Amino acid sequence: IQYPIQTYTNTNMRLKLPITCFILEIILIILFGVLVEYDKETDAKKWHHSNHSEYDNDFYYRYPSFQDVHVMIFIGFGFLMTFLQRYGFSSVGFNFLIAALALQWATLMQGFFHGMQGGKIHVGVESMINADFCTGSVLISFGAVLGKTSPVQLLVMAVFEVTLFAVNEFILLSLLGTRDAGGSMTIHTFGAYFGLMVARVLYRPELDKSKHKNSSVYHSDMFAMIGTLYLWMFWPSFNSAITAHGDDQHRTALNTYYSLAACTLSTYAMSALTADDGKLDMVHIQNAALAGGVAAGTAGEMMLTPFGSMIVGFLAGIISVLGYKYLSPILESKLKIQDTCGVHNLHGMPGVMGAIVGAVTASLATKEIYGDGLKDVFPMVAPDGRSASSQGGIQAISLAVTLGMALVGGLLVGFIMKLPIYGAPSDASCFEDSIYWEVSSKKLLETSKLCICPQPKKHCNYTTGYVEFKIQTSLLQTEQYLILPQDGSVSPTIRCQRRLYVHS
Amino acid sequence: IQYPIQTYTNTNMRLKLPITCFILEIILIILFGVLVEYDKETDAKKWHHSNHSEYDNDFYYRYPSFQDVHVMIFIGFGFLMTFLQRYGFSSVGFNFLIAALALQWATLMQGFFHGMQGGKIHVGVESMINADFCTGSVLISFGAVLGKTSPVQLLVMAVFEVTLFAVNEFILLSLLGTRDAGGSMTIHTFGAYFGLMVARVLYRPELDKSKHKNSSVYHSDMFAMIGTLYLWMFWPSFNSAITAHGDDQHRTALNTYYSLAACTLSTYAMSALTADDGKLDMVHIQNAALAGGVAAGTAGEMMLTPFGSMIVGFLAGIISVLGYKYLSPILESKLKIQDTCGVHNLHGMPGVMGAIVGAVTASLATKEIYGDGLKDVFPMVAPDGRSASSQGGIQAISLAVTLGMALVGGLLVGFIMKLPIYGAPSDASCFEDSIYWEVSSKKLLETSKLCICPQPKKHCNYTTGYVEFKIQTSLLQTEQYLILPQDGSVSPTIRCQRRLYVHS
Amino acid sequence: IQYPIQTYTNTNMRLKLPITCFILEIILIILFGVLVEYDKETDAKKWHHSNHSEYDNDFYYRYPSFQDVHVMIFIGFGFLMTFLQRYGFSSVGFNFLIAALALQWATLMQGFFHGMQGGKIHVGVESMINADFCTGSVLISFGAVLGKTSPVQLLVMAVFEVTLFAVNEFILLSLLGTRDAGGSMTIHTFGAYFGLMVARVLYRPELDKSKHKNSSVYHSDMFAMIGTLYLWMFWPSFNSAITAHGDDQHRTALNTYYSLAACTLSTYAMSALTADDGKLDMVHIQNAALAGGVAAGTAGEMMLTPFGSMIVGFLAGIISVLGYKYLSPILESKLKIQDTCGVHNLHGMPGVMGAIVGAVTASLATKEIYGDGLKDVFPMVAPDGRSASSQGGIQAISLAVTLGMALVGGLLVGFIMKLPIYGAPSDASCFEDSIYWEVSSKKLLETSKLCICPQPKKHCNYTTGYVEFKIQTSLLQTEQYLILPQDGSVSPTIRCQRRLYVHS
Repeated sequence: IQYPIQTYTNTNMRLKLPITCFILEIILIILFGVLVEYDKETDAKKWHHSNHSEYDNDFYYRYPSFQDVHVMIFIGFGFLMTFLQRYGFSSVGFNFLIAALALQWATLMQGFFHGMQGGKIHVGVESMINADFCTGSVLISFGAVLGKTSPVQLLVMAVFEVTLFAVNEFILLSLLGTRDAGGSMTIHTFGAYFGLMVARVLYRPELDKSKHKNSSVYHSDMFAMIGTLYLWMFWPSFNSAITAHGDDQHRTALNTYYSLAACTLSTYAMSALTADDGKLDMVHIQNAALAGGVAAGTAGEMMLTPFGSMIVGFLAGIISVLGYKYLSPILESKLKIQDTCGVHNLHGMPGVMGAIVGAVTASLATKEIYGDGLKDVFPMVAPDGRSASSQGGIQAISLAVTLGMALVGGLLVGFIMKLPIYGAPSDASCFEDSIYWEVSSKKLLETSKLCICPQPKKHCNYTTGYVEFKIQTSLLQTEQYLILPQDGSVSPTIRCQRRLYVHS
Repeated sequence: IQYPIQTYTNTNMRLKLPITCFILEIILIILFGVLVEYDKETDAKKWHHSNHSEYDNDFYYRYPSFQDVHVMIFIGFGFLMTFLQRYGFSSVGFNFLIAALALQWATLMQGFFHGMQGGKIHVGVESMINADFCTGSVLISFGAVLGKTSPVQLLVMAVFEVTLFAVNEFILLSLLGTRDAGGSMTIHTFGAYFGLMVARVLYRPELDKSKHKNSSVYHSDMFAMIGTLYLWMFWPSFNSAITAHGDDQHRTALNTYYSLAACTLSTYAMSALTADDGKLDMVHIQNAALAGGVAAGTAGEMMLTPFGSMIVGFLAGIISVLGYKYLSPILESKLKIQDTCGVHNLHGMPGVMGAIVGAVTASLATKEIYGDGLKDVFPMVAPDGRSASSQGGIQAISLAVTLGMALVGGLLVGFIMKLPIYGAPSDASCFEDSIYWEVSSKKLLETSKLCICPQPKKHCNYTTGYVEFKIQTSLLQTEQYLILPQDGSVSPTIRCQRRLYVHS
Repeated sequence: IQYPIQTYTNTNMRLKLPITCFILEIILIILFGVLVEYDKETDAKKWHHSNHSEYDNDFYYRYPSFQDVHVMIFIGFGFLMTFLQRYGFSSVGFNFLIAALALQWATLMQGFFHGMQGGKIHVGVESMINADFCTGSVLISFGAVLGKTSPVQLLVMAVFEVTLFAVNEFILLSLLGTRDAGGSMTIHTFGAYFGLMVARVLYRPELDKSKHKNSSVYHSDMFAMIGTLYLWMFWPSFNSAITAHGDDQHRTALNTYYSLAACTLSTYAMSALTADDGKLDMVHIQNAALAGGVAAGTAGEMMLTPFGSMIVGFLAGIISVLGYKYLSPILESKLKIQDTCGVHNLHGMPGVMGAIVGAVTASLATKEIYGDGLKDVFPMVAPDGRSASSQGGIQAISLAVTLGMALVGGLLVGFIMKLPIYGAPSDASCFEDSIYWEVSSKKLLETSKLCICPQPKKHCNYTTGYVEFKIQTSLLQTEQYLILPQDGSVSPTIRCQRRLYVHS
């Protein structure tokens, strides 16, 4: 039997990518024109209509947090994924592209579901933060399929995932009255399991063909650490960005800060412990140290206490490293889920853990602990709404809803993405920038220098000198060039001199 | 005729650079001592003299924006220019140097022109932001001449350009009552055309000699993406940093955010569309995706609407990519403008576009749309000043003034910079760090290891072992070193053993 | 005499590191559970108990500054130390680890010394900033011993140094009433001299064995510049983060901004001036340009004036470059202090200078200059406390106390760290990531491609094609792989045609 080697998929994006981008953006612009207007804090007339201090504008209370979240989305996620040795342009570049699309589409979808006023979607800093949150969920899913999808596939995924995200968020926050400020459920659990399901549908049995590219080199790991650290530092801003003003934002940031600090220590401990030679693994440090932020996403705004936050972070780090070490290989071999970035370990399990911690913490809420602040954290409980244990139950149900939406949604969207019309890369060209990007192969090896010709008129026809340099054009092959004067003082043979040097 | 090959310019900066820096800084310190004092928000006595809350201090309303702008100036501009494969130190290092000078000089010049009180220039967070803005303009011009100028030339350029920037800004903002919050005209158009004119005057007909260095390598493009993303993320803060408190800052940030998002999609589309093989070009992504921020610089604070912002950004991205693809080569071949970073495409054309959009938007302003907010955005129009269409006309005139100031100023300063006294690099050593910076050529190739000598006293004189390592000293040439004990147990011949290995 | 070559220390961290991390974190969690609770601004009940606007919460006045400080600690310090060519993972990774530990331990120690209320330590944004400050001090000491210590040693150092830092800070701020907002004394002087003393105790006479690794390469210097610039940009936030609200925060940021700008120019000048060939040295730019921030740490909040700030920064840059150029070699050869990052030049001398400037500026404080703001800056002086000159004297005494605490503390902790139980690296494996980290040695050199076999059935048995790639496995040695079909359709002779064949 002849083994059927997969033929090279046509990955020329010359028409597919521009058409997709243009159509999507033009639709967005039209819909924005019809549906979107400034909210009362960004509209000149509405803002000045009512009587208040200029300083009461929500801009001052949320914009710094927004910018931190923005950095997490574009630098954090973008650079975290640059660990692959030949996929840095795509990691940071496609992250940029799909984030720019997703935040626009999310503004419409979230605005549509979360209540339009007078037939219009109102936008301001809060909608900007929410759109970035939704985008974060798409980028988590991107991590699961990193290196194996074309940009057109990713744009298609973003459109559908944003829509489903908004539906799920609407069910949780608006219908069920769930609390999920930092999105352990809505963002992390949803994004991770959606992405894993997509990865399952797009399973490539012969991905081994590009296994040699699915790894890091020294410098790519350094770039990835930029992403990690920005995510780590700004996670307190992420979790607190849309909580209530005052103590709520303050407390959420504080809880997340402690959860992350404890998580970092348990991550380092587990990374060394699970290695035979006791050496730390950059994969763990880059990812598992962030699990504490994910796991504090729901309960962060509650009275979790620093003590509770640290326990949560400590356990999240342990679970996440164990996932990378032992669960990911099983997911790939048994469940056929090729999870490039291990989003199950960073966002999936810690997200579920965060949801459970949130449900437990909510069910323990009392007026005695929260005082008059109860209404800010649990508006459905206080003053005389549902009981705290009901709220806890709702939180648990919300996790189940989210998992269901993510798995079914990922399945459907995975099949849409599998249609052979998006220019997906072949198995052998996965994890490879050069199929989507102009990648310069010419690297200058030696500084050019002006050489003074030792014996003018004898060994060469030019009089004063020439510039000489060497370029590496491909594997261990170099070419030497001479740049000569242009005025004809040099004979044609010498002017075109271009020698091939291998190993000088 | 013998072709006159340019001789190697003396680029030794040992005296030129220190003398320039010391003289400039000492002049600055003296002028600051004579002219500058704290404003009423930074002076302990003045601030406490009046009766207000500590929280009313403008620090809290502008400092976060200032820090975002600061990051754009030093990281954004600095790293954006590190795309050159052998000019990373100079890109980020000279950016650092001239920015540090320009912000001090700008404080004096802007303070001088924008109204001194009691013979003193008053400084606080607003002057810090304005100084950073002016610095941004100088850095745009730096982009046009990147790689072809010595640091002393750049310092000279900064001194003159800051001065002319302040004059132009004074004419526009103070005399004409122009609105230009994000500086489409004052910063981008001025900086770009000033820089292009300088580049024209400094035209090097034989720049081909260093063409091989005027390109990127994989890692240098990754560093440049750090610059791009910080510029992109913080552009909303840039445009809104000095707008009026309240809805104005809020709206400006929002408009810029949408303009940039739309611009990103059109940039990716055009980059793929204009490439024969459909591959994305990092040059476009790194630069054109930012054009939406430039183009929203004037109208961003106006009631442009998200819809309008997205159209502006969408078109800016298209224009910018087309400029990189088709216009830049023409500028170089026909107009003899060698624009290293393509500032004409990122700042020039989008800046002009932003000015026009601003003029149109201003002329359409009505009390009906802006309500009582009209006086914040158009103080000259409201309540009963000039008409909106007059304001639009003034905006258009301001563009012409700016273009004139930039072109004439750039011409004059270009000739000053052309004086052969600043140690400009020769044609062959452009785009090359090693003429200004100590660049380590020694790269360790192999981890040192402790080798146990197999046959002590026989094959070698030392008993326990020796450390061995290899270093790459130049093009594909390696040297092997042995580090031996220092106590005389080894014979001199072996102690000095140092073998030359070429290709191991 | 046989020279005793130090044997390879066992650096396997498989048990040592996890045990240390787990024990420390579990102790921390228990102590947090017993001792720590939310302060009145983060506790839901307490905050809502009193009657105030949500917007009065200190979160809004300090959190942006906190995030800037946070970036300095994790990105700034972390990447500044990545200049070493083979120690990037450890620089940024151990920085991350010990910072995460130190900020937790600092919260306890500072809370303990600075006044517990009702037996509890109260936490909020101010404790977060203070903990990051204390962490900064530990990271300064880390710089002195960079590359020569195991992570366990560093964790031990952090625990003791944080404790001594808190004691010293308590003596200065609480007992003596010293002013030191930006920590010229408490953070920089303490951290530097503590670290230098530890480096002295851990002196390695044979460190020359790894001298070849104690240097930078091109890309590592670029990464280090990321650290430098973030430190430089956010230093105004650092110095102003815990000063009084209003003019004090504003003025401190402004003073620091001018000090840094002036320092940058003098740094560039001195770097070129002290080099024989006039070339700039990246070590100076990366470090000395920051000395202006250190030197403005104490007087920054005072009425130093922009003029005074610039003089301070200008001198700090000169002193720091001279230190790197002339003093560091002497410290190593005469005093046996191997100061890897030159913290004496960046934090030591500028810190002492900052303390002296602070003492002089304090002694010149008058009611005439400060007005009613005097009580914010000098609570002990105003309204009728000690005289300004007494305050100046106290400031000077505080410097002496800090130096004493640092030197004695560093001596003691150095000896604790010298115990041979922490798996310290051998002399030959200093500055080397691969003893603590999994470092991938396989680098893909050539894009894999699908080759179509030219003459099927004749020259080879497989029909459609094969995938080919090359990997660099060690020093200049490459291996070529073919990925062939799995069904045995290839004859053994052809299979072994190239060097190595693997089956997917």
